[in-house]
Amino acid sequence: MLKLYYAPGTCALASHIALHDAGAKFEAIRLDFSRQEQRSDDFLKINPKGRVPALITDKGVLTETPAILAFIARTHPAARLAPVDDEFEFARLQAFNGYISSTVHVNHAHGRRGTRWADDQSSLEDMKRKVPETMAASMLLIERDFFEGPWVMGEQYTIADPYLFTIETWLKGDGVDIEDFPILKDHHERMLARDSVKRALADE
Amino acid sequence: MLKLYYAPGTCALASHIALHDAGAKFEAIRLDFSRQEQRSDDFLKINPKGRVPALITDKGVLTETPAILAFIARTHPAARLAPVDDEFEFARLQAFNGYISSTVHVNHAHGRRGTRWADDQSSLEDMKRKVPETMAASMLLIERDFFEGPWVMGEQYTIADPYLFTIETWLKGDGVDIEDFPILKDHHERMLARDSVKRALADE
Repeated sequence: MLKLYYAPGTCALASHIALHDAGAKFEAIRLDFSRQEQRSDDFLKINPKGRVPALITDKGVLTETPAILAFIARTHPAARLAPVDDEFEFARLQAFNGYISSTVHVNHAHGRRGTRWADDQSSLEDMKRKVPETMAASMLLIERDFFEGPWVMGEQYTIADPYLFTIETWLKGDGVDIEDFPILKDHHERMLARDSVKRALADE
Repeated sequence: MLKLYYAPGTCALASHIALHDAGAKFEAIRLDFSRQEQRSDDFLKINPKGRVPALITDKGVLTETPAILAFIARTHPAARLAPVDDEFEFARLQAFNGYISSTVHVNHAHGRRGTRWADDQSSLEDMKRKVPETMAASMLLIERDFFEGPWVMGEQYTIADPYLFTIETWLKGDGVDIEDFPILKDHHERMLARDSVKRALADE
């Protein structure tokens, strides 16, 4: 059975929702970041990066949200969570999720985890001040150029939707008002109505 | 025919090498970052993110290195650049490339593009000072935990190799001595001997 290591408030929520969307049999294992459990010896043996999500499969451990989401979609084809047989459409989906991972999540991380990239208190405060601007710029780009509607990739709900939803849950804490982004607000509300999202949020 | 938009010294090199590895028919189109061509109106119509790489296909534009590399591998199966039919191994490969994209490239970018995340000159200098530390930590993790050998994913050369190679070309400028990482140094030298790498470097 699959095991998902997660912590509340992290991007692991996307994989958690997708596992419910897929109808997967899995166990969700919570790490307590306030007790630094992600840096424990036991967890570092599972994921030497000391991060979540980590998905334990019968073949080994997977990390990195875009890779985990694609694995869930490909191994649960009946759920139709990705256009797995269309090389272009699949790559376009992975490009969206790649943008979330390499740019949007990174923008967000500068608010709380600036010590990854700088040491001085003044730098950390400077980074934190800029988060509302960088997050809003990313949300504008997503609304204007990437979001097809009604779901991220168009008519079909895909693994891009729980990942975008996860980012949407961070906006308030990042100083961005989702009311300024009507497409994202509508997406967020429709996501909240889905069983998979309700179940993952209740679990966490 | 495929068209790859690139700029010298950027992560577009990975896709450029992989296109040669695949035996793809493509045209490489150079953007001059010193003239801000990546922010021109014409290029923003191709990639609203104003970044390279961007790959023009007959179905549309693809961005984000891990997505482009996977597309190249899947559309050129004879070149065997990825375990495309093995969901777990493919995801493991995508997790490696995702780590490069979301963590290693981001570490590097704090040296030259810190204005993405902070405004004060002192913050930019602080970020720049930390790059040798964050890049070395990532290289240590790759050598110790992820690199299977002789290629990144094991016996088979894959799309992870040109991406790691691209990072290796940045190390000196990032204040990291590749001599401290013998596995990466050996990988780098074997990459330099490949025709695909020679051709991409000559093009650029």
